[in-house]
Amino acid sequence: MKELNVLRHFFKPKAVAVIGASDDPSKLGYDVFKNLKNYSGHVYPINVRREFVQGVKAYRSVKNLPEIPDLAVIVVPKKFVKTSLAECGEAGVKAVVIITAGFGETGSEGAKEERELVEIARAYGMRIIGPNCVGVMDTWSGLNATFVMNAKRGYVALVSQSGALGGAIIYKTVKESIGLSKFVSVGNMADVDFADLLKYLSEDKESKAIALYIEGLRNGPRFMDVARGVTRRKPIIVLKGGRYGAAARAVASHTGSLAGNYRIYEAAFKQAGVIEAETIDEMLSMARAFNQPLPKYRGEASVHVAVMTNAGGAGVLLTDELEKRGLKVPQLRPETIGRLKEILPPIAAVKNPVDMVASARGEDYYRVAKILLQDQDLDMLVAVCVVPTFAGMSPTEHAEGVVRAVKELNTGKPVLALFMAGEVSSKARDYLEKNGIPTFERPEDAAAAAEALALQAKHLTLP
Amino acid sequence: MKELNVLRHFFKPKAVAVIGASDDPSKLGYDVFKNLKNYSGHVYPINVRREFVQGVKAYRSVKNLPEIPDLAVIVVPKKFVKTSLAECGEAGVKAVVIITAGFGETGSEGAKEERELVEIARAYGMRIIGPNCVGVMDTWSGLNATFVMNAKRGYVALVSQSGALGGAIIYKTVKESIGLSKFVSVGNMADVDFADLLKYLSEDKESKAIALYIEGLRNGPRFMDVARGVTRRKPIIVLKGGRYGAAARAVASHTGSLAGNYRIYEAAFKQAGVIEAETIDEMLSMARAFNQPLPKYRGEASVHVAVMTNAGGAGVLLTDELEKRGLKVPQLRPETIGRLKEILPPIAAVKNPVDMVASARGEDYYRVAKILLQDQDLDMLVAVCVVPTFAGMSPTEHAEGVVRAVKELNTGKPVLALFMAGEVSSKARDYLEKNGIPTFERPEDAAAAAEALALQAKHLTLP
Repeated sequence: MKELNVLRHFFKPKAVAVIGASDDPSKLGYDVFKNLKNYSGHVYPINVRREFVQGVKAYRSVKNLPEIPDLAVIVVPKKFVKTSLAECGEAGVKAVVIITAGFGETGSEGAKEERELVEIARAYGMRIIGPNCVGVMDTWSGLNATFVMNAKRGYVALVSQSGALGGAIIYKTVKESIGLSKFVSVGNMADVDFADLLKYLSEDKESKAIALYIEGLRNGPRFMDVARGVTRRKPIIVLKGGRYGAAARAVASHTGSLAGNYRIYEAAFKQAGVIEAETIDEMLSMARAFNQPLPKYRGEASVHVAVMTNAGGAGVLLTDELEKRGLKVPQLRPETIGRLKEILPPIAAVKNPVDMVASARGEDYYRVAKILLQDQDLDMLVAVCVVPTFAGMSPTEHAEGVVRAVKELNTGKPVLALFMAGEVSSKARDYLEKNGIPTFERPEDAAAAAEALALQAKHLTLP
Repeated sequence: MKELNVLRHFFKPKAVAVIGASDDPSKLGYDVFKNLKNYSGHVYPINVRREFVQGVKAYRSVKNLPEIPDLAVIVVPKKFVKTSLAECGEAGVKAVVIITAGFGETGSEGAKEERELVEIARAYGMRIIGPNCVGVMDTWSGLNATFVMNAKRGYVALVSQSGALGGAIIYKTVKESIGLSKFVSVGNMADVDFADLLKYLSEDKESKAIALYIEGLRNGPRFMDVARGVTRRKPIIVLKGGRYGAAARAVASHTGSLAGNYRIYEAAFKQAGVIEAETIDEMLSMARAFNQPLPKYRGEASVHVAVMTNAGGAGVLLTDELEKRGLKVPQLRPETIGRLKEILPPIAAVKNPVDMVASARGEDYYRVAKILLQDQDLDMLVAVCVVPTFAGMSPTEHAEGVVRAVKELNTGKPVLALFMAGEVSSKARDYLEKNGIPTFERPEDAAAAAEALALQAKHLTLP
């Protein structure tokens, strides 16, 4: 519990010092301080040569501050990092993010210097994230201790071993309106590592799923041990970089870690209940599913998914993706078929997927969703919509129909949405997301989300 | 050759009649005429009750027009389709798109009516696309004979058996700035089918690759026979819907065709040199690769890909995807390593992928691209960039560096780009695309493009 409290300072500090805060837009210390200025807690720029940084009164040292900051961000040139860290210790700082690079990732000399940083931190009881990282973000506390743009608020915690890739994922999630709860670029993991963060995030109410980009683990057994405990309560989705020969070689020079034998990772992840994703989109799609309840798991028969659509082809592609991933899209029971036939036009295909054809309106989505959710033989619903071409129809009414059915019945079954058509369906997508239904634009993303829910449900049925 | 000339009327007609053109925005005939109004040829609205449609003088019948339209689009209620088609025949129309639905897809009665349409067309020597389709688009002639938005101009021909899905793909390509040369929604394929279109498109200079969404083929052997010939000259990429059990059942009710045993399709595609894609994005990415020259194919050793990046993680993920798909990312020759070491900072990883680290600028992209392109052991280059975080740098300078190297050397090797970071890199992406380099945002898309080039190169080495 004490350990958790310490990590809390990285995300919800009362006061933050930025050591190396700068007025020069060509320095990372400029962006970091600019991002942090909006934080609700006190944020102090530390700069040895300036009285003000970005209009805020600056201090020469973290030791001169009017209060003890619980978090310090170090973004000074490498030669000043050690002294800055020692001053943090003397000042009573609890958590330090070291953005500066040039340590363990550069070779044995840098590794030695990195160990010295850890010794300083241990001596003062501080924890370090980094060095050689992009920083830390918490969209719920409003803390952005990085030099990249603010992520959108959400419930997926993202931890990345690659800083630049992590930054690129942030930009991507912003563009695609995907929300994150926290972002941690772990850098060289001199001190705080994946296992520490897993423990902390497993207790974090704002994070419903934990997504990790991992290149290599220093202490695999400890990671797997912690992960095994965490996955009983919260899903962990991993994207493993460096799975094959040349990519594994690249990992060695990139994060200075060993990619290791992928088959061993694969088996260990499986045993620990960690869900593996193949791509960034799959990782994010899987993680986004977990604002939903888990489906009933039917053992060998997997999970039964109901698909409803206003476009045959979209239903076909989604069903292909679901079946490829081992989910079942079962035939409907005669009773359900009867109920659907009562309300759908003769041209509709009353099977699973239910093809309501292009004329389907919001009311049809509402009624069909209700019937499918009420069927005890179906454990999950995916509502599919391509942009309606009939006049006076916008996909938003379809979205509303689905949301109305879900809220009215409150069956505790997971519901996902696949709304294809780019910009045209973005309003519908926003509406669904706001109402807690994860919404995807690509069949494979919706299917990955469904798969993750099924895998987690399966995992929790194990003793 | 005669057949080809007839199909030409679907894409480059001198005059077009829209039978069912409407002033009522709730009718498809409204959208179709609105889209066609911008066409450079003459476009005539046919409407039995109105003197003007959307401000354009209307005619009661296609037979009353001042000239013979080579293309007619029929978008009248079903009961008027047969008469309208017969009038087209009498008037001397050569090509007819029938958008109206309610024929073969509805059962045996509809199928009979559909056969009657074909008989009428045959009697007059007309060709039909449809019925039950979204229409036809040609971004080079400027013809949009559909009720969906204009696609962006490009060199990928897209043919879809699902109209609504085809429409959704159009919206998606517009959102993602992906260009198409032609779009054909084939509908029920009462007359013109995939094989006819393949033959025509294989001769079409504006289409460098043909992408097909197929649910089921009426005449599989004929398709494969034609495809086998076409793939010697131009790549065909297929996304097959209805591969697995439930999805195959859905196909039967959707397009009225049999999805068939997927294993048989799979083998036949392979034999015909048709490249299979698993998803819409993969299909589009693969097709987009073909404005590039084909790489050298090294038999068992596949194709040798060089990867350069400013972010280790992005290089790792791309390399994983390339290796997963059977491409080789070989170690570099000592001579190339020596040349790279001369120009890169010590912190850079001089292997393949070449990690130039985050400080890399446009000049570095230029010099590294040149060295890699000059290496006779490397057949293809993928330039990777995540948004640079250093001040005064925009990914556009990286893009310019790559383009400069490619133009200066003109090696005839294919070059692809992976520029990750959403909005932030969209200018760089536009610049690369404008300069003929297919650019992707996701590692798996870039890898799929590379794989498609390798597969086509392999196919052409076969006797």
